[in-house]
Amino acid sequence: MNERLELVDDPQIRPFLPLLYVAWSDGGLSAAERLVIRQHLERQPWLRPAARLVLDRWLEPEHPPSATELARLREVLRAAAGTMAVDKRRSLVELGQELATASEPDDRGRSRVAARELAVLLGVDQTEPAAEGLSPREVMAFPEVAVDVEGLRALLDGGHAEVRARVREFLARPELRAYGLPTERYRELVRGWLRDLCDAGIGRWAFPGVTSEVADLSSFMVAFETLALGDLSLLVKAGVQLGLFGGSIFFLGSERHRALLEDVATLRLPGCFAMSESGHGSNVADLETVARYDHDTRELVISTPRESARKDWIGGAAHDAQLATVFAQLEVAGVGHGVHAVLVPIRDATGNVLPGVRVGDCGLKMGLNGVDNGRLWFDGVRVPVENLLNRFADIDENGQYQSSIASPSRRFFTMLGTLVGGRVCVGSAGVSVAKGALAIAVRYALARRQFGPAGGREVVLMTYPTHQRRLIPPLATTYVLSFAFERLRARYVEVQAQPEPDTRALEAEVAGLKVLATWHATRTVQQCREACGGQGYLAVNRLPDLKADSDVFATFEGDNTVLIQLVAKSVLSGFGRSLGRGLGAVLKLVGDSLKTAVREKNPLIVRDTSSAHLRSRELHLAALGHRARVLVQSAAQRMQRRLHDGMDAHDALLELQEHMIAAATAHIDHLVLQWFSDALADVADPALRQTLDTLGTLHALAKLEETVAWYLEDGYVEPVKARAIRKEVEALCRELAPAARGLVDAFGIPEVTLAAPIAFADPATL
Amino acid sequence: MNERLELVDDPQIRPFLPLLYVAWSDGGLSAAERLVIRQHLERQPWLRPAARLVLDRWLEPEHPPSATELARLREVLRAAAGTMAVDKRRSLVELGQELATASEPDDRGRSRVAARELAVLLGVDQTEPAAEGLSPREVMAFPEVAVDVEGLRALLDGGHAEVRARVREFLARPELRAYGLPTERYRELVRGWLRDLCDAGIGRWAFPGVTSEVADLSSFMVAFETLALGDLSLLVKAGVQLGLFGGSIFFLGSERHRALLEDVATLRLPGCFAMSESGHGSNVADLETVARYDHDTRELVISTPRESARKDWIGGAAHDAQLATVFAQLEVAGVGHGVHAVLVPIRDATGNVLPGVRVGDCGLKMGLNGVDNGRLWFDGVRVPVENLLNRFADIDENGQYQSSIASPSRRFFTMLGTLVGGRVCVGSAGVSVAKGALAIAVRYALARRQFGPAGGREVVLMTYPTHQRRLIPPLATTYVLSFAFERLRARYVEVQAQPEPDTRALEAEVAGLKVLATWHATRTVQQCREACGGQGYLAVNRLPDLKADSDVFATFEGDNTVLIQLVAKSVLSGFGRSLGRGLGAVLKLVGDSLKTAVREKNPLIVRDTSSAHLRSRELHLAALGHRARVLVQSAAQRMQRRLHDGMDAHDALLELQEHMIAAATAHIDHLVLQWFSDALADVADPALRQTLDTLGTLHALAKLEETVAWYLEDGYVEPVKARAIRKEVEALCRELAPAARGLVDAFGIPEVTLAAPIAFADPATL
Repeated sequence: MNERLELVDDPQIRPFLPLLYVAWSDGGLSAAERLVIRQHLERQPWLRPAARLVLDRWLEPEHPPSATELARLREVLRAAAGTMAVDKRRSLVELGQELATASEPDDRGRSRVAARELAVLLGVDQTEPAAEGLSPREVMAFPEVAVDVEGLRALLDGGHAEVRARVREFLARPELRAYGLPTERYRELVRGWLRDLCDAGIGRWAFPGVTSEVADLSSFMVAFETLALGDLSLLVKAGVQLGLFGGSIFFLGSERHRALLEDVATLRLPGCFAMSESGHGSNVADLETVARYDHDTRELVISTPRESARKDWIGGAAHDAQLATVFAQLEVAGVGHGVHAVLVPIRDATGNVLPGVRVGDCGLKMGLNGVDNGRLWFDGVRVPVENLLNRFADIDENGQYQSSIASPSRRFFTMLGTLVGGRVCVGSAGVSVAKGALAIAVRYALARRQFGPAGGREVVLMTYPTHQRRLIPPLATTYVLSFAFERLRARYVEVQAQPEPDTRALEAEVAGLKVLATWHATRTVQQCREACGGQGYLAVNRLPDLKADSDVFATFEGDNTVLIQLVAKSVLSGFGRSLGRGLGAVLKLVGDSLKTAVREKNPLIVRDTSSAHLRSRELHLAALGHRARVLVQSAAQRMQRRLHDGMDAHDALLELQEHMIAAATAHIDHLVLQWFSDALADVADPALRQTLDTLGTLHALAKLEETVAWYLEDGYVEPVKARAIRKEVEALCRELAPAARGLVDAFGIPEVTLAAPIAFADPATL
Repeated sequence: MNERLELVDDPQIRPFLPLLYVAWSDGGLSAAERLVIRQHLERQPWLRPAARLVLDRWLEPEHPPSATELARLREVLRAAAGTMAVDKRRSLVELGQELATASEPDDRGRSRVAARELAVLLGVDQTEPAAEGLSPREVMAFPEVAVDVEGLRALLDGGHAEVRARVREFLARPELRAYGLPTERYRELVRGWLRDLCDAGIGRWAFPGVTSEVADLSSFMVAFETLALGDLSLLVKAGVQLGLFGGSIFFLGSERHRALLEDVATLRLPGCFAMSESGHGSNVADLETVARYDHDTRELVISTPRESARKDWIGGAAHDAQLATVFAQLEVAGVGHGVHAVLVPIRDATGNVLPGVRVGDCGLKMGLNGVDNGRLWFDGVRVPVENLLNRFADIDENGQYQSSIASPSRRFFTMLGTLVGGRVCVGSAGVSVAKGALAIAVRYALARRQFGPAGGREVVLMTYPTHQRRLIPPLATTYVLSFAFERLRARYVEVQAQPEPDTRALEAEVAGLKVLATWHATRTVQQCREACGGQGYLAVNRLPDLKADSDVFATFEGDNTVLIQLVAKSVLSGFGRSLGRGLGAVLKLVGDSLKTAVREKNPLIVRDTSSAHLRSRELHLAALGHRARVLVQSAAQRMQRRLHDGMDAHDALLELQEHMIAAATAHIDHLVLQWFSDALADVADPALRQTLDTLGTLHALAKLEETVAWYLEDGYVEPVKARAIRKEVEALCRELAPAARGLVDAFGIPEVTLAAPIAFADPATL
């Protein structure tokens, strides 16, 4: 054996070592390969006979080298590779030359040529030393690019920097971090945190003009969005107490109920919002709890007539709430007036459940276990008629039902419409959740190394296009949605400020953005979890809780599949009226789309693959707008045709359900990009505008890519353009990846809140 | 007020009541509408003056009806609607006629005409009573269709009905159900369950020919798949003990280690599989733990040289394991021989950690908290050289390293290749998880009612096309994958039975199916969770645990993003060799694709939208095959061009990463469908074959729909055909939805295992 190992010191043979190693290590030499090598060596007259003899011995197929011989050979090759410049380590031939440094200059030139020729003959000319474990690896730096983090943060913070600063200060308390606790202990902690939050004065913003001097609800909404960077049980607990329970009193009650709000804002009066029932979640109009008016005592009698009417999923009901806003079918003198809200005490101040009330616990949930969701049954519980939240309807001293809105359906939708702020909050919380998950996954992707190029050590995960694809487009969308919610809050405030707010258009916008943002959050957290591998599966790294806690965002405050259909109906009929009407107006409204489409389907444009064109906002808005118009128009036409043919409206809706949802989604996609573009126009700093513009472009093109099949079918883009869009998305990911750290830092998540160790890990230990 | 209410009894006026109600309830009458009504009434000479007077009073815009008057009116209308046939409740005019039954026959005819005309004039002719809350709702039956559940189950069970029956019997123990427990308690339970499983003799199947008479590993694999219908912590715990720990001894050890297997199979010797390290999970070749051979004592010295080399995520390490299979870089006489496996005792029989070993706990995880994942550090732990699992390499009495496989890289891949069975198991477990989630969600969707048609009561969720879309295509894919894994197990057994198994092709198939199945599971569980709304968020309904427990399937036993790239490389180079070689063969292999493509791109075929064509397996296989061939060929060409231009292979791979992944996915998609089709050919019963054929068709068309943008770009389908594919998918969902209950029942999940209350709920309470 040692005879063969002589060669490692023979300067004439050393250039061939890498090739011999690779040839054997790859599973033994075939007879043909052996012949090739022998013939080649015979053509090298300059080889000394002794060297030729050793080489021959290495080429005996019946005597392959042993594992130890090959291992020794590898040691030699590795040692040589370690002394080479990185760029030279990429070739077996170069590695051979490195081994030949001791040989005479003439031999060196000849052996180099011979080795290269042999490599080609054996088909290993492209084989790399590192791929064979022959060269050590070096850390390759990922080219990070600085961005104006403070500038971006100021823009993201928008008009409420002060509010955000206060909430961030609150969030930065280290005690606001818990996971894996038993339910009781976690609930107790969250209860305490909510008290701290209210003590910090943040709860007061929920009732502008009553408990706070803030002008409108936008401060509370911004606070809620910011709070969603932290523990989501606390967020939901705050949302229930202040937004739902307090909000129902604020929006549905009258002067006589306002006095309660001080206690609500300070948590002296913990309450709950008892709307959903086991049998009816989304379909609120068909709730079955009854509030029957008894004129003799001037009381309302609250009853749960059957099991499907029990109140279910009610946050706060299982343990904390003392007062409940109960939604029930109001009956006055035997006449039903539809769903109304009544304040019903359910516990006394010491927490004992009151007579006639039965309480259950929903038990363990996927997430949000710091929130005490419960069930409620009412066995003829009597409350004074004054407990009716009577802004829109009341029962007068004669026992007569009175309402400023005579129509039951209009009254119902008006009441519900006042509560639309909750959906704005949940949607924007989804954006914050995506921010948190992305901040963790991006920071990890820039530190964690795995695999790498030949001749170089392992590279950071962010180097990989698939990894960029996972994180960068969602990052862009998160930015776009962030600005869209700023606009949505402004729209909300604007509509609420009207003397007689017509909330119907707003409701569709809110529903659409809630759907978009919460599904975006669900997908993004999942991507981030997987992008962090096993680390993303550990509770300490927060992604499991972000996933489990936010998953229900798609379900509560309006189930996303139901909401998107509301958007569809609203879009289709212009103003959310019943489908039988108003179609003419819609058809007129969208009537111009064909003309536009014809203009945009100019053969030059559908094939324009220039980067300038693909990156122009004009294209993005036109394309998203075109899709929305065509889908809405065709949905309207198909609906009208079915109704005209005598089809039942429900059956027609079922048949067109997917078409309608596509139309609604397209409509919202266009709206969101339009709002983002509007916001961009107000950005003065050119560098910041450029960064945001690139993010918006990636968001828009990723959206086009996602729906490109539709555009291809429609003829709006040609195949060559579809391919160009895909390439442009890839290029944008590459462009933005080096700025990713700054882009997530601009979210302004306090480090204590970010919490996940992998977001702070020393790269050396990863 | 009561004057106005007179009209409710006037037979001449009653036909108009629904129209009046709707006109007012929709927000008040405009002047124009009032004019329309008045003019219309003037054209009805047959109306008595008294009736005309009352109607006039209802049309005074300055005196709109009160809420109570409208409510009273609604009561009258509802009462009338309640007595009507359901099909007549769909029109306001019919409702009016129902109210007119007391009037004279002549009046009835005239008023019917007049009311209909008025409805058209007011634009409410399509408005439905139910939409206005005027008609009660009736339960609409969803047309369920029976399927041959037992026949399907027999086919799904395949060749191991007996094995499955034994595991089902085991699973049916009511005590095997836990959630929400503290970690310690849960681990303790799972430990006990694993003992029960081993006591039931199921563990013995893991070592065919040693602890059991079973012919090969397929019995154990089928048992594992079936076990995945139940608690997934138990599954993983069993997989670690029997598949990974036991499997490493069985496959990497020699005769001298076989005696251990009896104790492994019976859990007398709990062990763990210590491969992954904090710094290297996917990149196993670069593990840093060292096993240095000391010839003086004939011992191996195991060390953790730095923090990134600690063993991490090791199931069983935190508490239970006594013996560990440790993967480490073997050093003999100063020469490194790459990664080898060594048995290292880490605890004594009473559970005390042994000297030189340090143990940590990974802590709370997203799921699988019944598994005690831990970390291990070794401080120069000495074990006899006999502890080396020496099937492929050993150290002889002279201290010489010996291996039957001289090449270090081939040896490494051979060792890892023997462990490929674990990936088969995890992939098929993903299919079982999807089965469990679908069974729960489908049963709920067939019981839970929400919303509904005008004039009918609420309908079951499965009625909705969006709901079918969520559940039915994944159901079809689950069937297809189920058969594919049956074939994959057969392939595995076939390859292992070879005297010198060449596992490379198998490894790519296994990796591809593992990726496909585990991502399918992740997506399907998420869809099912959302499809069950709030109920899906409750732990008691199992979906949260199914989600959390199975989410890591995409990460462990090979991270999916890494595995799919292995498939890509394998597909590209034909046999998994390094990329620099063998491209010529690939190009030759796929060289015919252009010819095929030209034939298939016949203008008649690319536009063929007939259902018969779209449902033909010939089309599906041709289309999936075409995509695979074209993507593989173009990836190979692009790779060759880059290498030819001198680009570094790693850089070239990065540039083509997404293309390569698309190629690999397409290749696996085609393979899976081919395998399913092969399996179908063996089904004798025509009805069963038909059912399975329809499922396969939906799976294939849904796959085409998902990737239709590619086919449009490629010109393989024209837009008209893309639309037809979408419609066909919708039609197939409609066709299969009524059979959904039977299709999930055929999975044969014991009711105790299904467990979720919503899967058994009385529809009346939902």
